[in-house]
Amino acid sequence: MNLLATFAKINTFVFDVDGVMTDGSILIMPNGEYLRTLNIKDGYAIQLAIKNGYNVIVITGSFSKPVEERLAYLGVTQYHQRVKDKKTLLLQILTAQNINVSTTLFMGDDMPDIGAMQTVAISCCPADAVIDVLQMANYISPINGGKGCVRDVIEKVMRLQGKWHDDANVASV
Amino acid sequence: MNLLATFAKINTFVFDVDGVMTDGSILIMPNGEYLRTLNIKDGYAIQLAIKNGYNVIVITGSFSKPVEERLAYLGVTQYHQRVKDKKTLLLQILTAQNINVSTTLFMGDDMPDIGAMQTVAISCCPADAVIDVLQMANYISPINGGKGCVRDVIEKVMRLQGKWHDDANVASV
Amino acid sequence: MNLLATFAKINTFVFDVDGVMTDGSILIMPNGEYLRTLNIKDGYAIQLAIKNGYNVIVITGSFSKPVEERLAYLGVTQYHQRVKDKKTLLLQILTAQNINVSTTLFMGDDMPDIGAMQTVAISCCPADAVIDVLQMANYISPINGGKGCVRDVIEKVMRLQGKWHDDANVASV
Amino acid sequence: MNLLATFAKINTFVFDVDGVMTDGSILIMPNGEYLRTLNIKDGYAIQLAIKNGYNVIVITGSFSKPVEERLAYLGVTQYHQRVKDKKTLLLQILTAQNINVSTTLFMGDDMPDIGAMQTVAISCCPADAVIDVLQMANYISPINGGKGCVRDVIEKVMRLQGKWHDDANVASV
Repeated sequence: MNLLATFAKINTFVFDVDGVMTDGSILIMPNGEYLRTLNIKDGYAIQLAIKNGYNVIVITGSFSKPVEERLAYLGVTQYHQRVKDKKTLLLQILTAQNINVSTTLFMGDDMPDIGAMQTVAISCCPADAVIDVLQMANYISPINGGKGCVRDVIEKVMRLQGKWHDDANVASV
Repeated sequence: MNLLATFAKINTFVFDVDGVMTDGSILIMPNGEYLRTLNIKDGYAIQLAIKNGYNVIVITGSFSKPVEERLAYLGVTQYHQRVKDKKTLLLQILTAQNINVSTTLFMGDDMPDIGAMQTVAISCCPADAVIDVLQMANYISPINGGKGCVRDVIEKVMRLQGKWHDDANVASV
Repeated sequence: MNLLATFAKINTFVFDVDGVMTDGSILIMPNGEYLRTLNIKDGYAIQLAIKNGYNVIVITGSFSKPVEERLAYLGVTQYHQRVKDKKTLLLQILTAQNINVSTTLFMGDDMPDIGAMQTVAISCCPADAVIDVLQMANYISPINGGKGCVRDVIEKVMRLQGKWHDDANVASV
Repeated sequence: MNLLATFAKINTFVFDVDGVMTDGSILIMPNGEYLRTLNIKDGYAIQLAIKNGYNVIVITGSFSKPVEERLAYLGVTQYHQRVKDKKTLLLQILTAQNINVSTTLFMGDDMPDIGAMQTVAISCCPADAVIDVLQMANYISPINGGKGCVRDVIEKVMRLQGKWHDDANVASV
């Protein structure tokens, strides 16, 4: 099937955190915490997708209370952290929620994402993903991790479905 | 009217914060606060504009006490945060202060800015604004958000009006 | 000997911190501490190398408890800080652990690294190393410091040895 | 006089902070403090210059205790902050210390630096200085502020004078 035709069928977005929602940097704090930098443009798109009924799921091997809270603030209730086997968890989530892989998009950037990426209808990655991911992704965003690649794929799907419109109740926050 | 001729008439600057005064990044703190990174070169231009009698107004959907205090330190007394409808607020502000849209410039970078941008004499955006904004802006700065795009438009207006001169009382702070 | 043939013999990686694991930036805190930004993709490769039996040694002129703890979390037990003479220490370490220079790789970016770099089988540097280092390195990574240059050389060695495979017990953290 | 011949005569370096030692970014903290990011490669060159008897003077319009302490740690004892008129202060400093402008280099990036830059033998700026500075500088470093432009000019002078050698007592810290 044509790639755009597949984008047009997506109702579920799954994202990794580090290297996708961030640029892969972690600021190391004296107390051992790692601080991450997220992107406002991605945040706008995530809110708009959720308001329009899309499923937005985040699956990460790492863990971060601040990121969890930021995502919850944007409306993301499905935040799974410390995940070792992303593919197995993803399939469990999709089955439990009766979501079809044929309408699911996964965006990842590194080796632990590959299994899950191979499972869904469209595997996406940021422009600066690692080589193993760049070589297998269906769609390579022109945008780097943390710079708006999340928005890029959300916007692409919503435009194809005629749902990309400003919403007075969604702010860049 | 010619774009430079319009720039030459501006006496009021309106800026969004995230993606314009910043590069769109937010550093997520453990306590849930978001830290932003502003630009010293923008700060110099904002101070100089205010010292020369220009109106500098900031309208943002987000909220940040530290940004508010930084802007106040630069002389910006009109900082409006948590704004949902930027266009309506902008028109209220301009009416209340007897400022004409024909002498007003708005710089934004994302969907919530478009309504207000369509209202003023010159809509501007940073080079890395989202596609919807890039397509409708009168002027696309060659500079990205947070890297000096605010200064770019202030400097352009003040040069055209013969007011861009160093001021011994304005420091890069 | 051919450069790839030498990469294929490496069993020991030695890395500098600033400018290699970081982009050379230090965020200066009010209490005098310096915060550093490390890279998740590098962290994945370091973990995978250690799990596969490679020696990973870090030698830095600076000092940072948070970096030490981050590296320990990734499995790096050999973290030497406040080192003035990297070459002498490196030779002591290699002798004590019965590691041959002919199977050792050193990645550095600045003048204090040159002595140690001249000692090992392959001297590597990030794309943005200083000119003295760029001129003497056997291999210049196409990637800048802090952006994945550490991973680049680990991945290169492990691929040549057929050991670059995802490991369900290694997460991007 | 030829530019390289003038570089070869320099014994005194004067630097601005924001936009020269930093990339012009300030991270705004909740308590109103601004955090700055300095560069390790610049720090190495500053130490080496001081160890070799060069004068290193820093003059800035802003103020930052953490930057002052970082510079003191590198050996910079002449740190002048909250300076409004850089040219006048510079001339006072040079006179008091019997330093000739013909052997002095100033690196700045913005309007408040221009007066002082016009006074010395060589005015330098980072690649991303503002247009007014780019147009009047004798030497535009190919490197941006905060990315090693300070080192670029120190290294250039010290190489021309045959003094650019690694020093076992200077670490990248």
